[in-house]
Amino acid sequence: MTGDASRGRFITLEGGEGAGKSTQLRRLAGVLEGRGLPVTVTREPGGSPGAEEIRALLVSGETGRWGPVTEALLHTAARRDHLERTVWPALQAGGWVLCDRFFDSTMAYQGYGLGLGRDLVAGLQRVALGDFRPDLTLILDLPVETGLDRAAARRGGEDRYERMDTSFHHRLRDGFLDIARREPDRCVVIDASRSLDEVHAAILDAVDARLRG
Amino acid sequence: MTGDASRGRFITLEGGEGAGKSTQLRRLAGVLEGRGLPVTVTREPGGSPGAEEIRALLVSGETGRWGPVTEALLHTAARRDHLERTVWPALQAGGWVLCDRFFDSTMAYQGYGLGLGRDLVAGLQRVALGDFRPDLTLILDLPVETGLDRAAARRGGEDRYERMDTSFHHRLRDGFLDIARREPDRCVVIDASRSLDEVHAAILDAVDARLRG
Ligand SMILES: Nc1ncnc2c1ncn2[C@@H]1O[C@H](COP(=O)(O)OP(=O)(O)O)[C@@H](O)[C@H]1O
Ligand SMILES: Nc1ncnc2c1ncn2[C@@H]1O[C@H](COP(=O)(O)OP(=O)(O)O)[C@@H](O)[C@H]1O
Ligand SMILES: [Mg+2]
Ligand SMILES: [Mg+2]
Repeated sequence: MTGDASRGRFITLEGGEGAGKSTQLRRLAGVLEGRGLPVTVTREPGGSPGAEEIRALLVSGETGRWGPVTEALLHTAARRDHLERTVWPALQAGGWVLCDRFFDSTMAYQGYGLGLGRDLVAGLQRVALGDFRPDLTLILDLPVETGLDRAAARRGGEDRYERMDTSFHHRLRDGFLDIARREPDRCVVIDASRSLDEVHAAILDAVDARLRG
Repeated sequence: MTGDASRGRFITLEGGEGAGKSTQLRRLAGVLEGRGLPVTVTREPGGSPGAEEIRALLVSGETGRWGPVTEALLHTAARRDHLERTVWPALQAGGWVLCDRFFDSTMAYQGYGLGLGRDLVAGLQRVALGDFRPDLTLILDLPVETGLDRAAARRGGEDRYERMDTSFHHRLRDGFLDIARREPDRCVVIDASRSLDEVHAAILDAVDARLRG
């Protein structure tokens, strides 16, 4: 995949619960579409029919239904299907693919948060995806409490991780920041505690600075 | 898991379609139970509630619904759940666990049959299971045509792999034999073209020779 000059761009948004990923993804997509770019908006886990079926296994039932290794394997199976069916075809057609969560979420949640460690999660991604990676990853960072307050105020849905204890969410935040430190060429940390408009502007600056031309 | 002297024994049966795995597993279980051993009979993919749900994704729908890498990941996710929920607890309680297919089937079907190669499948198993392996693996070997004839005569069910072309089934058979050659301490090849009683006797000899005491 990588190395093909004619291919599009793969941008991932990462961060904890309530960071504003889904909100900002829609706004970024709107701007890029306004520029006439062919945009695909997608999410993980899910984003293809098979991966959505795997997502249903992951988000239904009780917390602790799957052990962390099994959970990482299911996320990675869904990711591989999503890449084959949705992301790679769109990139090959020259599209800009914006994805709500990607492998950094597996690293942060299962690797740092649930304690599997970097090596296991990185080894699994390598086996499953080779060296494919996003062109740009925007890590939306904000204090744990702010994110949880925003997520709680939001209506409905899947809240398995929101219900984890605070120390989990601190490991998650620190994990995302550690990932960004280790891969500065790929990752940009965005201060997501600001207003929607300010965060949007910061995201657009990062996209233009990193992917222009 | 391994290295615990008080644990039971983990025996896997492997081989292509119609080799007689399920039939021979039941007979072996009967004999071991008759000796007063605590026997657990299980199968893959499946063998725990979560793994059976993953199995349902794997066996339903069209061939080619999942790419081979995704398929290997789903099998491995199911395997991890099966080990955590069923196999490891039974072994820790001193049980003899007899399993219809295990990781050699992932190696033979996805690695050799569908062309993923040994390295990818072995790497995936290592990440997911560490160095856990069966105490004894019985590889039921017979000519491809004999196995397919037996499977076709058998009533009903999941026949996704039976419908693959003959060259696939030859790669599968050669793959299982290659696995046995590489791990002679773990694997015993059983000539499964013989009568039910003869195959049963050969299996019992192998179990007694390898696991007695
Ligand atoms: N910068 C912001 N300031 C205030 N509220 C925000 C901000 N960004 C998002 N929100 C609100 O917080 C909630 C969570 O945002 P969402 O985009 O769903 O986060 P995520 O997808 O990262 O979990 C939503 O109700 C959203 O409107
Ligand atoms: N040694 C044998 N000789 C003749 N038929 C057999 C023998 N072993 C199994 N069969 C029959 O072949 C069919 C497939 O056996 P089965 O145990 O279901 O194979 P597998 O589980 O390996 O696919 C069944 O109908 C079974 O009764
Ligand atoms: Mg969201
Ligand atoms: Mg069978």
